[in-house]
Amino acid sequence: MPLHAILDFSVLQTFMEVLATLAFAISGMLEAARKRLDMVGVCVVTGLAAFGGGTLRDILLDRRPFFWVQHSEWLWAMLALCAFAMLTLRGRHFKLTEQAVLLPDALGLGLYSASGTQIALAMELPAIVAVLMGVITAVFGGVLRDIVCNEIPNAFRDHRPYAVCAFIGTWLLVLAHTLNAPDWMGLTAGAATTVVLRGLALWIGYQLPSWNPGSTSD
Amino acid sequence: MPLHAILDFSVLQTFMEVLATLAFAISGMLEAARKRLDMVGVCVVTGLAAFGGGTLRDILLDRRPFFWVQHSEWLWAMLALCAFAMLTLRGRHFKLTEQAVLLPDALGLGLYSASGTQIALAMELPAIVAVLMGVITAVFGGVLRDIVCNEIPNAFRDHRPYAVCAFIGTWLLVLAHTLNAPDWMGLTAGAATTVVLRGLALWIGYQLPSWNPGSTSD
Amino acid sequence: MPLHAILDFSVLQTFMEVLATLAFAISGMLEAARKRLDMVGVCVVTGLAAFGGGTLRDILLDRRPFFWVQHSEWLWAMLALCAFAMLTLRGRHFKLTEQAVLLPDALGLGLYSASGTQIALAMELPAIVAVLMGVITAVFGGVLRDIVCNEIPNAFRDHRPYAVCAFIGTWLLVLAHTLNAPDWMGLTAGAATTVVLRGLALWIGYQLPSWNPGSTSD
Repeated sequence: MPLHAILDFSVLQTFMEVLATLAFAISGMLEAARKRLDMVGVCVVTGLAAFGGGTLRDILLDRRPFFWVQHSEWLWAMLALCAFAMLTLRGRHFKLTEQAVLLPDALGLGLYSASGTQIALAMELPAIVAVLMGVITAVFGGVLRDIVCNEIPNAFRDHRPYAVCAFIGTWLLVLAHTLNAPDWMGLTAGAATTVVLRGLALWIGYQLPSWNPGSTSD
Repeated sequence: MPLHAILDFSVLQTFMEVLATLAFAISGMLEAARKRLDMVGVCVVTGLAAFGGGTLRDILLDRRPFFWVQHSEWLWAMLALCAFAMLTLRGRHFKLTEQAVLLPDALGLGLYSASGTQIALAMELPAIVAVLMGVITAVFGGVLRDIVCNEIPNAFRDHRPYAVCAFIGTWLLVLAHTLNAPDWMGLTAGAATTVVLRGLALWIGYQLPSWNPGSTSD
Repeated sequence: MPLHAILDFSVLQTFMEVLATLAFAISGMLEAARKRLDMVGVCVVTGLAAFGGGTLRDILLDRRPFFWVQHSEWLWAMLALCAFAMLTLRGRHFKLTEQAVLLPDALGLGLYSASGTQIALAMELPAIVAVLMGVITAVFGGVLRDIVCNEIPNAFRDHRPYAVCAFIGTWLLVLAHTLNAPDWMGLTAGAATTVVLRGLALWIGYQLPSWNPGSTSD
């Protein structure tokens, strides 16, 4: 591969990662604003949404240092983002921002889950565990955000395919790994599948079949 | 001990462990159904209820691999259980299921707490820490289940002896350990005491003395 | 330094640490009482409030043993404290107790955050990470207490400077570390700054500027 192609790919990847993390961070920020949290709460919930999933994965896999310890400039960026948002964002911007982050968020779902699964596969963990680690990486930032904001996590009850898309996409990555395909191929296939599935699900408004067990006690 | 006795004991133990884990998993599944979670939520809450306590203990004790990483077939079994339940369980089955799992759940309380304490004792941790680890193993799956479902954990407020039974039972295990009794004896005594205490408490409907501090601000 | 001065300092430090941990523990106990938790819940929430922040920091930094494992007599002290409170404290004592712990709590904020930051600096982590670890040590005991009690954490929404005081104070500690000042100097300066800022904020009733984004969807 010629040198410029490598560089281009790397720049594109970094750009996508920044975009994805930004989308996750913004989801935390909007939730914090909706709950009328103060500036401490806004920063914490934003950080949880952006870095919580990967941090939980690293705790489970006993990996150190965390991403945000090795690249602590991201913590500064997050604080700057929160300051910027608190100074400029108003309620009427929220709906717009929410719409605007839907696609970057799908990108984040794909990138985070693929990278989480890849890390677990490199540690030679079983396939189902690797898939689970991918899903946790992508989804549990939002889960922690919702728990801190005293809500049942959205990913567990909105009947929209979110974790499910990552679940399917990461299996493709596992398949590529089993077939000894090069890493970049599996990562790309897995992430792309997840993003496309999520995009499709949003587009056609697909809902997961609901478990409606009728009358339940409590 | 003759060979068949060992085998019988081992088969019985495995059977009891499966039964206990099933009871914990079902408690998560029913809670998820009551909260109208989608299939992702059902699987996560079921998994948390079944494996969350042991996982938290292992994080605190810095032990790896987790049970469900080493025996990843249990993750498959859990997914199969959730699929089966969502296809067949209806609201009217819930009350019955809840009653039916009360005894397996007591079994789980005894087995999980005894094994958690045993692990901590083998690491030569102080007695009170070993007891705490046993209680966490048995109780915090349910605690995490309730936190994710946005409830104050049942184990902390229903005034029924649950954690308390495990607390007492595991002290017996610590005592056996201090007296240099063989491991199986301590484990059996501890687990059996917990199960019997829990069974008795359910049977006579015993309630913990309540702390009723009268009028409180808030 | 003469021997008696060292001893005095050490006795004073131990006294302050006990006082600070007591204040944190009491904050958990009062919250548990308000939520009508049973004795298990009271003990768990009290323990989380007292030791949760440091434990979370140690999990993040992968440090073992935890404070309460190495000094397990503190667990006994906590259980004794809970028993004592449940036997003697009544609703009418609560307001008084809350007032009485405000200053020890500020002391805890200063001591915990300074020691957390110091530990991270000794591990040569980046300054912003060290500050974050300090704030987590001091604040996340209360955060975990509130999450378990099914509340949005107070530290994230009451618009009172709490985490912010620790944030500022620990930067002083980082500055001292950068200037190669002796550890005790940085620790004292950092902790004292935090305590004074918190005291001032309480005294003048200062509120953090609120982010009022107007009408928001939800």
